[in-house]
Amino acid sequence: MTDESRIWTAALIVVGDEILSGRTQDKNIAQVATWLGVQGIRLREVRVVPDVMEAIVEAVNTLRARNDYLFTTGGIGPTHDDITVDAVAAALGVDVVIHPAARAILENYYATRGGVNEARLRMARVPDGASLIENRISGAPGIHVENVFLMAGVPHITAQMLDALTGTLEGGLPLVSTTIGCWVGESEIADLLRETEKAYAGVQIGSYPFFREGRVGANFVIRSTSESELAECATTLSEGLAALGREPVAGGI
Amino acid sequence: MTDESRIWTAALIVVGDEILSGRTQDKNIAQVATWLGVQGIRLREVRVVPDVMEAIVEAVNTLRARNDYLFTTGGIGPTHDDITVDAVAAALGVDVVIHPAARAILENYYATRGGVNEARLRMARVPDGASLIENRISGAPGIHVENVFLMAGVPHITAQMLDALTGTLEGGLPLVSTTIGCWVGESEIADLLRETEKAYAGVQIGSYPFFREGRVGANFVIRSTSESELAECATTLSEGLAALGREPVAGGI
Repeated sequence: MTDESRIWTAALIVVGDEILSGRTQDKNIAQVATWLGVQGIRLREVRVVPDVMEAIVEAVNTLRARNDYLFTTGGIGPTHDDITVDAVAAALGVDVVIHPAARAILENYYATRGGVNEARLRMARVPDGASLIENRISGAPGIHVENVFLMAGVPHITAQMLDALTGTLEGGLPLVSTTIGCWVGESEIADLLRETEKAYAGVQIGSYPFFREGRVGANFVIRSTSESELAECATTLSEGLAALGREPVAGGI
Repeated sequence: MTDESRIWTAALIVVGDEILSGRTQDKNIAQVATWLGVQGIRLREVRVVPDVMEAIVEAVNTLRARNDYLFTTGGIGPTHDDITVDAVAAALGVDVVIHPAARAILENYYATRGGVNEARLRMARVPDGASLIENRISGAPGIHVENVFLMAGVPHITAQMLDALTGTLEGGLPLVSTTIGCWVGESEIADLLRETEKAYAGVQIGSYPFFREGRVGANFVIRSTSESELAECATTLSEGLAALGREPVAGGI
């Protein structure tokens, strides 16, 4: 049974020198964030750390202690710079072991692809006590141990693992949102935004300005766990914009 | 004079509920990372935090203490949820003041756009002792205080601010990189990668697998501050791949 008043939180650690060098544009933050929202879990913080043992261990210890769930992406492949499993095991104070089912999955997957070698067998290494997260694409599974979920760095493989986890984690009421756009400088309606947010206790309004076609505009994203409060707040904000002579655009611009 | 042996580091704090909700795909991490690389500064860690005072203050205090430079993106606009200036001032233990030059910039910018109001004037607020970072697009400047650089959340405005800072920060030798691609499963050549990296003390090799056109491949990114060591390592790796019957592709796939 879900406690609807409790807020469930998660953190994400993105492991990877390729993100910190600017070579690769991260896509996992948005993907994991969106997926968590659907599970009724809020992503509260993200850290991007290098492929360095102490950096990963520090982040794992800090973030898993103050969130319900911790996700990691990256660093679970077969090569020498893949050290996320070792770092999570060190943070939890457990050994790294070969998971028999992971080994069987890899042996099966590589049976027609040159067989399992030492490097490939690295992908069957897990922190002691872990269970596996299915991955239909590349064989190598994700890993679940205590409140930590280790996933791939390659975004479409991460997507598979998230799909396998869908509906299995306890969460609260999902946060619902609605967007109202307006061709207005956000600085012109800052008072309206602040007062509207204040009038609805369970609602957050984010203001996201843009500059397009030579004009300034903004999208106002209203978030709440209550559909009805969300609708009322959206109506109030739209009426407030109209009263200032600014046309609200439902759904955003 | 630049000390060529010293490694200069930076951290980045991305402030924004819109990133943590998954609504907005972050583009500032890659942009700031790439820019820092050119300045000879390594981005060592990134945190994405919500628009919550304590979360920003904690991240500012931790990251600025252990890096040469700290950058922030987001939360310096005119609305009620823009609290990065207040959070950085709190972290540094200084007051928030109106910066006269920032006020003049805003008054000039808004002279033909409805004038400065209270919300717009928020964008002239800075931690006491700060200087400004020019922004030709929207008037509102970035802020430099001690070793902290506060920039916009909107990526093309951040790009302007980075441009204004180019060449003004002390850094070390820039990290140079070269990429070798190969149609090979990274698990097949893990030994070669590890041994090649070990043979060159000042070199890092990252392995970035992909799956395209129904085949597995990987790009191997070699990084060093030494052009000559980089070239030698690239030659060794290419020869090693060729010796295994795998064609190396200079520049990556």
